[in-house]
Formats: sequence, C-alpha cells, structure tokens
Amino acid sequence: MRMYDILHRKRQGEALREEEIRWFVQAYTAGQIPDYQAAAFCMAVCCRGMTGEETAVLTDAMMRSGECVDLGRFGDRSVDKHSTGGVGDKTTLIVSPIAASCGAYVAKMSGRGLGHTGGTVDKLESIPGYRTELTREEFFTAVERVGMAVIGQSGNLAPADKKLYALRDVTATVDSIPLIASSVMSKKLAAGARNIVLDVKIGSGAFMKTEEEGRELAERMVHVGEACGRRVCALLTDMDTPLGHAVGNALEVDEAAAVLRGGGPEDLRRLSLALATDMLALSLGLARTEASQRAEQALQSGAACETAARWIAEQGGDPSFLTDGHALTHATVEMPVYAQHAGYLTQTDAESVGRAAAVLGAGRTRKEDRIDPDAGILLYKKPGDAVERGEMLAVLYTNRPSAAEEAQAILRHALTVSEACPAPHRLLYGRVESGTAGAVVQNP
Amino acid sequence: MRMYDILHRKRQGEALREEEIRWFVQAYTAGQIPDYQAAAFCMAVCCRGMTGEETAVLTDAMMRSGECVDLGRFGDRSVDKHSTGGVGDKTTLIVSPIAASCGAYVAKMSGRGLGHTGGTVDKLESIPGYRTELTREEFFTAVERVGMAVIGQSGNLAPADKKLYALRDVTATVDSIPLIASSVMSKKLAAGARNIVLDVKIGSGAFMKTEEEGRELAERMVHVGEACGRRVCALLTDMDTPLGHAVGNALEVDEAAAVLRGGGPEDLRRLSLALATDMLALSLGLARTEASQRAEQALQSGAACETAARWIAEQGGDPSFLTDGHALTHATVEMPVYAQHAGYLTQTDAESVGRAAAVLGAGRTRKEDRIDPDAGILLYKKPGDAVERGEMLAVLYTNRPSAAEEAQAILRHALTVSEACPAPHRLLYGRVESGTAGAVVQNP
Repeated sequence: MRMYDILHRKRQGEALREEEIRWFVQAYTAGQIPDYQAAAFCMAVCCRGMTGEETAVLTDAMMRSGECVDLGRFGDRSVDKHSTGGVGDKTTLIVSPIAASCGAYVAKMSGRGLGHTGGTVDKLESIPGYRTELTREEFFTAVERVGMAVIGQSGNLAPADKKLYALRDVTATVDSIPLIASSVMSKKLAAGARNIVLDVKIGSGAFMKTEEEGRELAERMVHVGEACGRRVCALLTDMDTPLGHAVGNALEVDEAAAVLRGGGPEDLRRLSLALATDMLALSLGLARTEASQRAEQALQSGAACETAARWIAEQGGDPSFLTDGHALTHATVEMPVYAQHAGYLTQTDAESVGRAAAVLGAGRTRKEDRIDPDAGILLYKKPGDAVERGEMLAVLYTNRPSAAEEAQAILRHALTVSEACPAPHRLLYGRVESGTAGAVVQNP
Repeated sequence: MRMYDILHRKRQGEALREEEIRWFVQAYTAGQIPDYQAAAFCMAVCCRGMTGEETAVLTDAMMRSGECVDLGRFGDRSVDKHSTGGVGDKTTLIVSPIAASCGAYVAKMSGRGLGHTGGTVDKLESIPGYRTELTREEFFTAVERVGMAVIGQSGNLAPADKKLYALRDVTATVDSIPLIASSVMSKKLAAGARNIVLDVKIGSGAFMKTEEEGRELAERMVHVGEACGRRVCALLTDMDTPLGHAVGNALEVDEAAAVLRGGGPEDLRRLSLALATDMLALSLGLARTEASQRAEQALQSGAACETAARWIAEQGGDPSFLTDGHALTHATVEMPVYAQHAGYLTQTDAESVGRAAAVLGAGRTRKEDRIDPDAGILLYKKPGDAVERGEMLAVLYTNRPSAAEEAQAILRHALTVSEACPAPHRLLYGRVESGTAGAVVQNP
C-alpha cells in the first residue's frame, strides 16, 4: 500500500477501497505517514468528496484507532445526544435527565468548548462541587444508579480524529461533509451508545450556514451511524438566533434549571422535548407519539428535575439551585443594553452574540484560555417581539469591566430593531431518520 | 497574509491575488510555511486549477526566488529550446548549432535526466574531454565566440521550484497543468533567454498522454512566457515512438552527429529543422519560410556541423567524431533482436523502449545512480516498415551482461509486428503561437 497511490486515486475522484482507508488511518495515527501527505489527503477529500461507504469506513477506522467504551451492560437502552454546536445550546442538561427518568441510560462524555462559549463540561463546572472527572467505574456506577452521568471526555477516544483534526484546522480542510461526519461520529461511536440523536444546527451561529448543507451533513452522519450498527436520527434546527435567553456558562445552567422546574424559554423547552422524544423512541423502542408524551410527562411531573438533582449530587455537586431557584451567576459587572428606537426585534445574530459573550469571558480562543463561568449575556427579547424605545433588550454579565463596552458594541450590531414585524421564527427545519441503509461496517 | 485563507480560497475555486501567490512562494522558500500547508496548496491547485494570470504570477515568483541569468549582452537574439522529455530526444545537440550558425545565441543550461535515459548533460558527457561545468565568465565567453554553449544547470536557479517539486513528487500532485507550466517556465525564464521554443511531447513515452492535454500545457506555457515578457512558441510532437533510431547516451550523440553531417533518421532531421525554424524566426525576427530555408541551408552547407565542432572544442571536447564519423559507443555486449514473424512494424512503444534502455544502464532511477554512456538501443525499424521473419529489429548495447535478457524481453513487448500496414506515423501534431496575451507580469 502506498500513500502516493491513495492520493492519486482520490485526486482523480475515485472511491478508495476499504483496506486503503483503514491502512491510511492506522499508519497516520502511528506516525508512519508524514503530515504533508495527510494534508494532501484532506484537501483531496475536500475537493473530490467521499461516498457514504468511504465515509463509514473512515469513521469506523478512526473509532478503532483508540479506546471504545463498552456500554453493553446497558443493553439497547444506552443513548447519546450530540449537537454540532451553537450559541446558547444547553439542551444536554435538560434532555439527559428527561431520558434517564424515563428508563434510558445516558453515559455521556462531553468536550470542552473551543469557540464562543464553553462546552457542556465547562457549563457543568459552574455548579459548586460538580466533578467532571470520574474513573470508569465511578462513571458506570453513576449511570447504573441514576440512569445518567456527564463527564469530560477521558481516555484515548479516536486519537486518529484528534491528530487529523489538528491538521485540518491549519490546512483549511475543516468544512468538508465526509470529514466532519467522520470526525463527529468516530468519537460518538467510540463513546459506546447504541442509540444516537444528532442535533444539526443551521444558521449564522452554526458551522452549517444553509439548510441544504445541514441536511447533507445530517444524512451522512445518520448513514455512517447505521452502517456501523447504531440507531441514529438527526434533527435540523435553527441557529440564526441563540437558543433560549441565556448565553454563557452559569447563566445557561440557570436557564436549564428553569426548564427542568417547568418554566424557561419556550424555544429551549420545545427543542429539548423534541430531542428527548427521539432519544426515548430509539432507546426504548417507542412510537414517537408515545415517546413525546413520556418526555412531556417527565418534565411536568418533576421526575426529570428530581433525576437531575440525583445526578448532580452523585457527581459531587450541590443541586440546591435546581429546587430553590437561586442563581449560580454572580458577575461583578452588569451592563444593560436598551433599545434606541421602537419597533420589532427582527434579528438576534447568533454568531455576533457568541462573539460578544466570548469578549466578556464566556469562551476560549485558545485551548489554554480560562473560562469565566459568570460571564455571559441574557437576552430579554426574541425575534418577533415588540420593543419600546428605551426598553431593556439584554444585560451583559462580566468580571472584566474593560471588556463590557466592546461586547456592548458587538451586541448592539447583533440586535436589529425594525418597523415591520418579521415572519415567525422557525425552530425545527426537519428530521433525518434512521432505518434505510444496510450495515456496511461490522459491529465492533 | 495567512496561509489558511489562501488555502481556503483556492479550495473554493477562487483565483488568488498576485500578492497572495508571491507571499506564498517567498515564505515557503524561506521555510516559513510548513510542508503540510504547501502540500494542501498543491492538492487544491490540482483539483481547482489556476487561471493563466495566476500561473504567470506563480511562475514569475518562482523565477525570482533565486538567481536570474542576465543574457542582456546578447540583445534580442538569445534563444532557448526546451523539451518536456521523451525517449531518444537528442534535438538540442542539432538545433543549437543550427541556430548558432545562423546568428542566434544559445546559452543553454541543461538538466541531468531522472528517468529512462539521461538528460542532455549526460549525453554530452559521452564526448571525451567535454566539460559540462564552466564558470559564468567561461560560459558567456563561449557563447560570444561560438554562438552557443551547453552546460549543466548551475547556480541557484528557481529554488522555490526545486522545493515544491520535491513535495509534489510525494503527494501525487505532479501532473497539474498550472504546476507543470510554472515549474518548467520558472527555470527557463531564470536561464535568461529572450526567446523560447518549447517541444511538448505527446504519447506513451511522454508525460502528456493525449493531444488535448499537450495542447493545454503548451498554451499555458506560451501564455506564461509572454506574460513574463518573452517570445515563446511551442510545437506539439509525437512521443508514442522514440525519436530517431538511437536510445542511450553515446548512441544518441552519434546519431545527432549523423544528422549534422547531412544524414541520420528522417524524423529526427525533420523535427530538428522544425524546432530550429521557430528558434530563428523568434530570435532573428524572420518570417517562418525564410527561417526554414536558413535552417536547412545551415545543415546542408555543413555550417551547423562546423559550429558544433567549434562548440565542442571550446568546451574542451574532442570533436573529431563529428567529421570522421567514428562511433562514441563501445559496449562490451551487443545483443540483436530478430523478428519472429513477417509483417509490418505497427508499434514501437516509447515508454517500454525507455524502460529497456534504463535496464541496460542508460538511465537513472535515483539521483545518485551512475549512467553508463555506452548502454542503449538502436532501433532498425520504424512503425510502418515491412519486416521479414528473422530480420534484425534492434540491437541492445550494454556493459552489464546480466541485464541484457531482461531488457530484451521488455523490448520484444515494445515492438509489435502485425499483418496490416499501420496508418502513416504523425510526427508534428501542431503549433502554439505567441503573440496574443498581454504582459501580465513585469519584466525582471
């Protein structure tokens, strides 16, 4: 097997053979293929694409490049949820307790965020005492006792992806459907869940800017997951506007708690129930109407909130904020943003809101940056809301007084107030179902 | 300027700006851009292409990455000839003396061959005493006195090309029209001639397999040369069959001498005159009919042969073989190949003949390999010739007795004898003229 021939064939737009892809992944991970050949490979894939079968083999090979977590003890009931990332996305904190309280098992490993706001693990670290690092045994025990646990990604999951991603990041080869799909899915598959619900974000604050791109990515990921023997479905959801009102780590945990208590923003609640419905349908084998009723019931009855409290306590955290509703956020600076004229809020540009939050301290631009859990933004208006002149649109929270003005300027640009009422906001674009493709790759 | 943005834009199929291309070439040559980004760049160019303007800027930047030979003392009369490489191609040894004897100046730097047979410099080293290394002053003096000189490529010509070519060679990014054109032309431009005649080879023994590819490359190179302020034209010529009868270093010098004495194979003589015609038309500003007559006259009158003798003597070589016709080739093993049945020779596959010659010792597969000047093949029949059973088709020459049989087997496969007489052999496919494109890049 020669890397030269693989590069030449992919360059000509040919489909690679299974053994070629597996050899490449194995040899690159082992340091036997130089970065310049791997970079040429990524660029050739960006330009020429990969078939669904090639993508499935690439994903499977990347999954097998490291540890594969064995969730066999949870039978067919293990379920994972993955979002391609957006601003204000805190659904993991809501859907996991809903699913667990209904009998599914959520053994979740989450990443830290590199971008506008923190990842799930960063958010959870705003909860006093919460341990994001558990041993494998503590992790499994927590899942067995509560039905769920959420820890930081540990162990050596998909090292091939780690190495390739670092290279793609500096060679402008990140945004390729087969490369994104294999990157996301190799880690999800290695994390072991039999059922996976994907939330593919579309819009200004997301990686995929158009519905068409989002659908293509979703279809590819669902196909890959199926081909590797998992049950997978994907929702296509809006990320032109941040999800909910809160953007920032502790602020988002507070907002998730509000939904678990039966309140919270309508869009966040609706999306969480949609995701939880698919998680339950897949993992418990329920019809979707039945799954939807159970999810709603778990929220209304307080069962999900109770599961959340047990989960947080199991991982060493203080769950009292969940029940008594006290805020986790304590920033030294709070700066309101007022409307300069009356009208309707027509746009809340997610990408800019995210950037403003990062300036306040809510995100990282380099791996080694520290996140300030208190920093963030509360948005008081959603697109379509009527606005009076001088009415408060948002409040900025930060412990960096010097950053507040820059963030305020960015946020002002992000919020557009116009005379005409905008068309109603779409939250859910569509759904990509599992079930058609055959198993291309054998189960681990 | 960020390499990431350049890669991203090229990946999307956008045309790069002049300053981006120049920055890339300068920074990569200086070691400020890692190989993996340059490899991704080459692959993106292979997949997305480059406009003529981009290619001209890339070429100009690569030319300026090192020394540029100043042939200003020869005014507009300096002329160079470059072949994209083929089996049995010894035209440099014929066209240079023709052009020089008519008043043009040929200050030629030639490469060594990496492939089936040697380059021009390897061929010249079969002449006893010939020095392929001259100081710049000796070189210029020789050109002034004789009208021509041929030395090995010296100095630091187009180091950016050297570095990029080595990378392309291991990343399957060699065969891209803009990358080939810029590689060839950057070295030719740096060598300083105001007029350049290109011989673009097409067929099994050439890099370009089809007339269409060959024409595209020729057009691109002519455009690049013009854009950089030179006068350029290109001939598209056959390389399905070796040129002339001789393949191998000393054998080819002997055959070139035969043409200079007024004899030699018809195809070699015809192509040499065609190339010399364009060299004279460009460098002396003649109409092509007039240029053609002068070239033919130079050969018939013996003026070209006399110039060749003065050139070889000027560079320390013994030119007596030119006039007395004694052979330079003295191999210890001579092995004939006979026809196994009667018919017509329908094919002499150039690529396989070249491979057989390399096995005999005429070529290099690695830079450090030594070439045997005596090794090679004499082909006694050309496609279209009638053949009797048992008639001699070719003779192999080598000093490696053990190699003869392998080479014979390869050669037998290369020579096809069939009952039907093949269609007449085409030598010249076409011609790409200079004169239309404007100067995109300023003169050095």
